[in-house]
Amino acid sequence: MDLATDTAKPHDRLSEALSDDMRAVNAMIRERMASEHAPRIPEVTAHLVEAGGKRLRPMLTLAAARLCGYDGPHHVHLAATVEFIHTATLLHDDVVDDSKQRRGRPTANLLWDNTSSVLVGDYLFARSFQLMVETGSLRVLDILANASATIAEGEVLQLTASRNLDTTEDTYLRVVRGKTAALFSAATEVGGIIAGASESRVAALRAYGDALGIAFQIVDDLLDYGGTAAIGKSVGDDFREGKLTLPVIRAVAQADETERAFWTRCIGRGRIDEGDLAQAQALLTKHGTLESTRQTALDWAGRARRSLRDLPDHELREMLEDLADYVVERIS
Amino acid sequence: MDLATDTAKPHDRLSEALSDDMRAVNAMIRERMASEHAPRIPEVTAHLVEAGGKRLRPMLTLAAARLCGYDGPHHVHLAATVEFIHTATLLHDDVVDDSKQRRGRPTANLLWDNTSSVLVGDYLFARSFQLMVETGSLRVLDILANASATIAEGEVLQLTASRNLDTTEDTYLRVVRGKTAALFSAATEVGGIIAGASESRVAALRAYGDALGIAFQIVDDLLDYGGTAAIGKSVGDDFREGKLTLPVIRAVAQADETERAFWTRCIGRGRIDEGDLAQAQALLTKHGTLESTRQTALDWAGRARRSLRDLPDHELREMLEDLADYVVERIS
Repeated sequence: MDLATDTAKPHDRLSEALSDDMRAVNAMIRERMASEHAPRIPEVTAHLVEAGGKRLRPMLTLAAARLCGYDGPHHVHLAATVEFIHTATLLHDDVVDDSKQRRGRPTANLLWDNTSSVLVGDYLFARSFQLMVETGSLRVLDILANASATIAEGEVLQLTASRNLDTTEDTYLRVVRGKTAALFSAATEVGGIIAGASESRVAALRAYGDALGIAFQIVDDLLDYGGTAAIGKSVGDDFREGKLTLPVIRAVAQADETERAFWTRCIGRGRIDEGDLAQAQALLTKHGTLESTRQTALDWAGRARRSLRDLPDHELREMLEDLADYVVERIS
Repeated sequence: MDLATDTAKPHDRLSEALSDDMRAVNAMIRERMASEHAPRIPEVTAHLVEAGGKRLRPMLTLAAARLCGYDGPHHVHLAATVEFIHTATLLHDDVVDDSKQRRGRPTANLLWDNTSSVLVGDYLFARSFQLMVETGSLRVLDILANASATIAEGEVLQLTASRNLDTTEDTYLRVVRGKTAALFSAATEVGGIIAGASESRVAALRAYGDALGIAFQIVDDLLDYGGTAAIGKSVGDDFREGKLTLPVIRAVAQADETERAFWTRCIGRGRIDEGDLAQAQALLTKHGTLESTRQTALDWAGRARRSLRDLPDHELREMLEDLADYVVERIS
């Protein structure tokens, strides 16, 4: 390993270490998103899949399997599976949120229509399901079926919790698991299972993915109140959409009467005037909830790192550990 | 069996013969559509599931399994699975078609919103997937995964074929298999497989479901040009939506220049004036395509009936055979 690699970001080091596997995953994704009869399907999918996503989830699966000594070939199927599930949820999310931009490009629902996004998402779910059946592991199927249910349930929960000031931290955590951590933890867990790893290692990989996903999502939510446009998400989106994220939940819990009226008007009723985002940011700062949320994200990242301590000493283990720090680097 | 039962519709006779199993299926559906954390999910699902659908698909699975001597319990899981897949596709279809009515009641997308329909549909897909994993049969999983992909592909194909006058009968058949026959044939096939039936019987059950589904859908499409409102679908919906169904495809193939201009304006461009539906009906009658389509539906129903001839002599087999005649009764 040369010096340049040593100082590269953990994500890029993973990508480099897994490059042969990732080539196989990308080939499988291209092959399986094809549809002989409905060319709209690969058009829509390619728009999203080839938009330069980080392929973080498939890399988690590949790394987990390799770290546990697996030599193939089914980790490739599972990596493609999790990327398809992820892509399908993005297509449906963009319809649900009426989004216009994703990964710096216009969304599929904007370029084609909501209809195409819904149906192509369904197609990718079905394709992901076919891919995992090919592994022949009922346990893997069980885990991914449960993850799919948690994802959908989390999305519905987020929808019904939106604009509800009584949303608790428990509910927030459930939404975060649905949005992000359920697929992260399934991705690492199935990597271990396909490799035939011991139960304790499988549990460690699952815990790693869960904690990593939670840290990742909390950071994302935090940046909505103070990040930069570089992440492809505009500051204030969650505020305008009335999403109850951790900094807000904590600030609402400490709000006096006037502040509560402010949150009720903006988040509860969606009546937002100029200057309200700045006022929200000021309240989060006043109550220290940006800072406490930052600390919560760092705690989860630390938990992710520690989860792996009993796994084999391996360069991939180091990269996964470093990845835990990396996902919180933007707020460190 | 009393006289009243003998003269009842095959659908009702099946319902009667399978009443214990259907009770178990309904209980499982209610149990599995629950979500502790997101009450919106059972609200939306119950609206659709309890709207008095005919439960035809789960009955097909139960009948196929029983006919092959199965004594349970996994036919119940599979019957609930196919009903969940069906319900999920209805939720997404109503979003895609912007429908206002389903089974004589306002659609979920009208009562709640498109967002709820998309996400609850996703949840039901995931739930159906969990249910089938519980059967522990990889072959069943493979069949249902393939059916799910065919369904989604058929929907996308229908979307892209809409308003396209060059649509062929082959494409139409593919759309029909996606919309209806893929789930019918998977429903009967997995019933045979869970019962451990011989390959030839499994093939016969699959062929039965396929032909029954095709007959069913052709009848539905035919009634769009001359049925009654009793089926909960308004005459002319397909015409207004620019769907290329069999009577139209055949009439377009025989159209002279003036007629082709008419179809191009109405179906191709969606510019429909008063009297155009009547004119379309007149052209279909002139070219005999309502009659030839009717004959095609009857042919498929006959094929469905004949598929079962090598299956055990059993009252359920008779009911399934009669069901094939019943689905085309509305046009006989």
